[in-house]
Amino acid sequence: MAKVAIVGATGYTALELIKILLNHPQAEIAALASRQEGSPPIEMIHPSLSGRLNLACENLTAAQVAERARFVFTALPHVAAMAVVPDFLKAGCRVVDLSADYRFNHPTVYEKWYGHKHTDPGRLGKTVYGLPELFGDRIPGADVIANPGCYTSTAILGLAPFLCQDLIDPKDIIIDAKSGVSGAGRTPKLNTLYSECNESIAAYAVGNHRHEPEIDQVLSDASGQSVEVTFTPHLVPMDRGILCTMYARPKRTLTEADALNAMRAFYEGKPFVRVVQQLPATKDVAHTNYCHMTARLAHGRLVVLSVVDNLIKGAAGVAVQNFNLMNGFPETTGLPR
Amino acid sequence: MAKVAIVGATGYTALELIKILLNHPQAEIAALASRQEGSPPIEMIHPSLSGRLNLACENLTAAQVAERARFVFTALPHVAAMAVVPDFLKAGCRVVDLSADYRFNHPTVYEKWYGHKHTDPGRLGKTVYGLPELFGDRIPGADVIANPGCYTSTAILGLAPFLCQDLIDPKDIIIDAKSGVSGAGRTPKLNTLYSECNESIAAYAVGNHRHEPEIDQVLSDASGQSVEVTFTPHLVPMDRGILCTMYARPKRTLTEADALNAMRAFYEGKPFVRVVQQLPATKDVAHTNYCHMTARLAHGRLVVLSVVDNLIKGAAGVAVQNFNLMNGFPETTGLPR
Amino acid sequence: MAKVAIVGATGYTALELIKILLNHPQAEIAALASRQEGSPPIEMIHPSLSGRLNLACENLTAAQVAERARFVFTALPHVAAMAVVPDFLKAGCRVVDLSADYRFNHPTVYEKWYGHKHTDPGRLGKTVYGLPELFGDRIPGADVIANPGCYTSTAILGLAPFLCQDLIDPKDIIIDAKSGVSGAGRTPKLNTLYSECNESIAAYAVGNHRHEPEIDQVLSDASGQSVEVTFTPHLVPMDRGILCTMYARPKRTLTEADALNAMRAFYEGKPFVRVVQQLPATKDVAHTNYCHMTARLAHGRLVVLSVVDNLIKGAAGVAVQNFNLMNGFPETTGLPR
Amino acid sequence: MAKVAIVGATGYTALELIKILLNHPQAEIAALASRQEGSPPIEMIHPSLSGRLNLACENLTAAQVAERARFVFTALPHVAAMAVVPDFLKAGCRVVDLSADYRFNHPTVYEKWYGHKHTDPGRLGKTVYGLPELFGDRIPGADVIANPGCYTSTAILGLAPFLCQDLIDPKDIIIDAKSGVSGAGRTPKLNTLYSECNESIAAYAVGNHRHEPEIDQVLSDASGQSVEVTFTPHLVPMDRGILCTMYARPKRTLTEADALNAMRAFYEGKPFVRVVQQLPATKDVAHTNYCHMTARLAHGRLVVLSVVDNLIKGAAGVAVQNFNLMNGFPETTGLPR
Repeated sequence: MAKVAIVGATGYTALELIKILLNHPQAEIAALASRQEGSPPIEMIHPSLSGRLNLACENLTAAQVAERARFVFTALPHVAAMAVVPDFLKAGCRVVDLSADYRFNHPTVYEKWYGHKHTDPGRLGKTVYGLPELFGDRIPGADVIANPGCYTSTAILGLAPFLCQDLIDPKDIIIDAKSGVSGAGRTPKLNTLYSECNESIAAYAVGNHRHEPEIDQVLSDASGQSVEVTFTPHLVPMDRGILCTMYARPKRTLTEADALNAMRAFYEGKPFVRVVQQLPATKDVAHTNYCHMTARLAHGRLVVLSVVDNLIKGAAGVAVQNFNLMNGFPETTGLPR
Repeated sequence: MAKVAIVGATGYTALELIKILLNHPQAEIAALASRQEGSPPIEMIHPSLSGRLNLACENLTAAQVAERARFVFTALPHVAAMAVVPDFLKAGCRVVDLSADYRFNHPTVYEKWYGHKHTDPGRLGKTVYGLPELFGDRIPGADVIANPGCYTSTAILGLAPFLCQDLIDPKDIIIDAKSGVSGAGRTPKLNTLYSECNESIAAYAVGNHRHEPEIDQVLSDASGQSVEVTFTPHLVPMDRGILCTMYARPKRTLTEADALNAMRAFYEGKPFVRVVQQLPATKDVAHTNYCHMTARLAHGRLVVLSVVDNLIKGAAGVAVQNFNLMNGFPETTGLPR
Repeated sequence: MAKVAIVGATGYTALELIKILLNHPQAEIAALASRQEGSPPIEMIHPSLSGRLNLACENLTAAQVAERARFVFTALPHVAAMAVVPDFLKAGCRVVDLSADYRFNHPTVYEKWYGHKHTDPGRLGKTVYGLPELFGDRIPGADVIANPGCYTSTAILGLAPFLCQDLIDPKDIIIDAKSGVSGAGRTPKLNTLYSECNESIAAYAVGNHRHEPEIDQVLSDASGQSVEVTFTPHLVPMDRGILCTMYARPKRTLTEADALNAMRAFYEGKPFVRVVQQLPATKDVAHTNYCHMTARLAHGRLVVLSVVDNLIKGAAGVAVQNFNLMNGFPETTGLPR
Repeated sequence: MAKVAIVGATGYTALELIKILLNHPQAEIAALASRQEGSPPIEMIHPSLSGRLNLACENLTAAQVAERARFVFTALPHVAAMAVVPDFLKAGCRVVDLSADYRFNHPTVYEKWYGHKHTDPGRLGKTVYGLPELFGDRIPGADVIANPGCYTSTAILGLAPFLCQDLIDPKDIIIDAKSGVSGAGRTPKLNTLYSECNESIAAYAVGNHRHEPEIDQVLSDASGQSVEVTFTPHLVPMDRGILCTMYARPKRTLTEADALNAMRAFYEGKPFVRVVQQLPATKDVAHTNYCHMTARLAHGRLVVLSVVDNLIKGAAGVAVQNFNLMNGFPETTGLPR
């Protein structure tokens, strides 16, 4: 039984993480930490946990956390994560970091997109990017994993089969992404108020969203060529779910069957990716760790569509998938289907 | 052409007020004020006004407002309203106050429910309550009107026909009210975030919502007897609309036809109240100044159902209805149907 | 491993049933039946099952079903259920019937509310009503269980502690119920279209909903006195969830603490009922088999609030809870939390 | 005062048309027709019209309609429209047809995409396409107008400034379109049920939606070059609104300021198009006849974003705009802002 801690326990991702771990036969939640005032019972912060987890959400130091748990999920904002991850590692804990702090190879890229000097640059470029479908062989031995962004996973999973098999032009890719509002976090902000979002759809951060360089880097690393995408995120009036509609130029003539076969071959044996015939809806994978994807040809363009639950496969679910691989548990253990 | 100002121009009610007044043939918006930093064009605060109103939202004193407008809508939080309304009146402006500050007859009731000492107690008990269907004859001559609360109007309009015609027990009334989220305002708060509200319904403030004493007072005043209701508000995952489902004990045997006739007789000639046969849906009156209502008998209980758009008939629309009556314009002028 | 069949596999309840049973360590889905044309793979009907269940949805006779499975969930419309349940029982299967066909004690009540002559009247009054928190001791030995209605369970669970402990007047109870739209089923109808429901709330079937006599009967049976409620259902713009806000007259002076204690005592040891301090939201129990409830006192009235997920604790979840009890499995086996 | 009829009065577009015309100072609704059984009062079909329009929805022949009205809005499904439009014209009525039947220049294109032989081919290629911002000078004299599709208008309005001013490659255009569910009409279908759509987003008809050839044709006609777009529609969980996110290749180096200026110059003096700085949200134009649009440059690609209310500027509103122009009324008369 692995004793785990969740640091940054008040957000939506943390709630999903707790729920998954409560159903996980090999994990025991031993500590919950946040900068919350006082030490309220976690069920006061997340009423859906009423009667399920008798733990307070405490303001703990890294050392205090490390006394109780050998495995730590850091569900903190960027900057806050890199301030504590080194301490956890020094204390001998293994870590899945759900922030962006360890996702980039180079501190300059991090600093450009996140506006902060990286305080633990030595780990950049060495930390494994925790997308098990692409880097599953490097995850088991890792001490720290950079858990992917939600848009990022959805986009990368859809495009990787084509880029890694050299089927599309790596410089002519458009990712039109649509996300539910929970992806924006639980901190009250004007633009995520119900009455701002409901009955409305809009794009945001066109051409300058932080997940764009992350997609570029990971797809370049995975495919061994320089990939540059145009990424446009949208906020959709729904709680959870991401759909990426992606447009690419085939390098050679492709049929729809070719495209689907390329995807199926690439994900053979991967338990959480389903290549489907129908056009996938976010509802099809809601509350599960699955990614559904398909492909179409239109006017000579390849259109790839992939969906995940942004809080599960896009965050907490893949974090537990990484936890499973790091601990030698079967990859699917405890994960919602 | 009446020159009007809106003080507190950044919220949802103010936006509706601006939109209605832009279509009003007798009103000209001459000033918009708020405590907002800088003086941003109003279309930066409300993008739906793009290209429609070339005014900034300024941090103006009451005197500055009064120089530009003779009629003021105060769409401010409670306490903030009573801090400026006397200044507007002294400067010769007429005022519709959309806050709760002038709705109560007694300062002690105000202080009990709003937690603040009233700073303009002399006007309490004299200010006309701006529900035109009940107090329409007192509105034309008034200098200041207390615009009703949104739940309050919906509930009062449904119950008044029965209480004023002495058809139900004034002490055995349950109001189960359901509101869209816009009623909670535009200030970012955890409980009005999209991901908290969507796909969820819950009650709040059971037995202690501030609109309960307002309903009691106004129905008592209107019917000449002491009315005491049990009021339970709920937050519904929709942007706008209020439904009140109300349960009362008839004093004598009533048929459904009797009940509907009592409503029709009471609202004869009132342009914005429709007594309907079907069970009313909030969608039926969305974006209009109408109130739809009906009645049913069930197990000897009278069930009254009424719906309004909380931002229109529940706030901005009735404010303009009051403005029309105060200025001698036809009651329906400029109001959305 | 119990081999189970689901008859009527195309609806929303059936989908939840399939998902729960796929995660159930003691159940194997052996047959899926419906009157669907052809025998489409179930993942064509429910895309969220893609790659998870390699079964067709077949037009099978009761005999054919009974050859493959010893336990049958009938998720059929009323009338259709009583046409096949006797056949399953004759063939030696045990049955949880999710329709209304076996819920009533008397055929006349059934006929009055459902408009059809009962074709298996001999089983009425003998079939156990499958609400495990009230009738758990009678379920293990039963061959057929009448699975409760969704509104019914929510209301009964909230009121039973007070009626069974004789704390409230059994003739002065109002149930104001709010349901997500999935409760209305998957058959296309005008009133459940997205554009009819979204951004709208309305009551329906005021004073004449079929769950009202069901609530009356079960609460009367459970409490040993004649209970008569006034029940008003509402359609809420959300997919799933039921909230019942219930108003009752205490027989003697009650404090809020008394009320909460009465609930806690009544549900001691019941794994799926949580008496909570906060006002429960349907979101708190969404996608789980939990019922959250609390109580308040307002103007001398007891206000009880209870929430369930209508498709889980209100239908498929409680069906599996009954299945567990009938088979001697731990009550919570496989159920979503 | 123009006497008008609406043929096909039961759908969502017809309801908006009726509401607009009720507020139109120069129009009088003289007849409402549909194939509905009986002749129910229109307020039974559209409860939001309660007390506002004392007309039945009748099963009238074209001749009967023509006796009462000189101007007809046909809000019928395709095929049904072309079966009656010639009769209305023969009877001397002028017509705005909201179906697709008269939008194409060639019967072969119509037949390919709509699967029916055109029964009035002589009018194809001569009927004016009713997008006033592009073809406003040809509308006043027309007897029949083909009212545009909702996706079509949104896309065309956003792209026309760039194609007509030869600023982008006409063969490298992607339109990723997102629509609220009301665009799918009021006929009950599985895929537009609330519980199918809510909390979900999905693409449909990828590469084969009927609005794609309509966009190609109209943009080719307007710009004098052969335009071919890749069009992907999505269903968004909201009632109304369309957002088109469009990706194009500039023919020469463009700055964002250039792009915005090109749009502003093109729509100078057009009352319902607003070129905005911010990224437009569908909510900004909901319930109005406005189209908001903006442009961004990202990785050398031009990204154009435009929004309309699909039922107003995308259907009923532009129909009345055409009606105004055909009758010599000011273009904005009666239109919601």
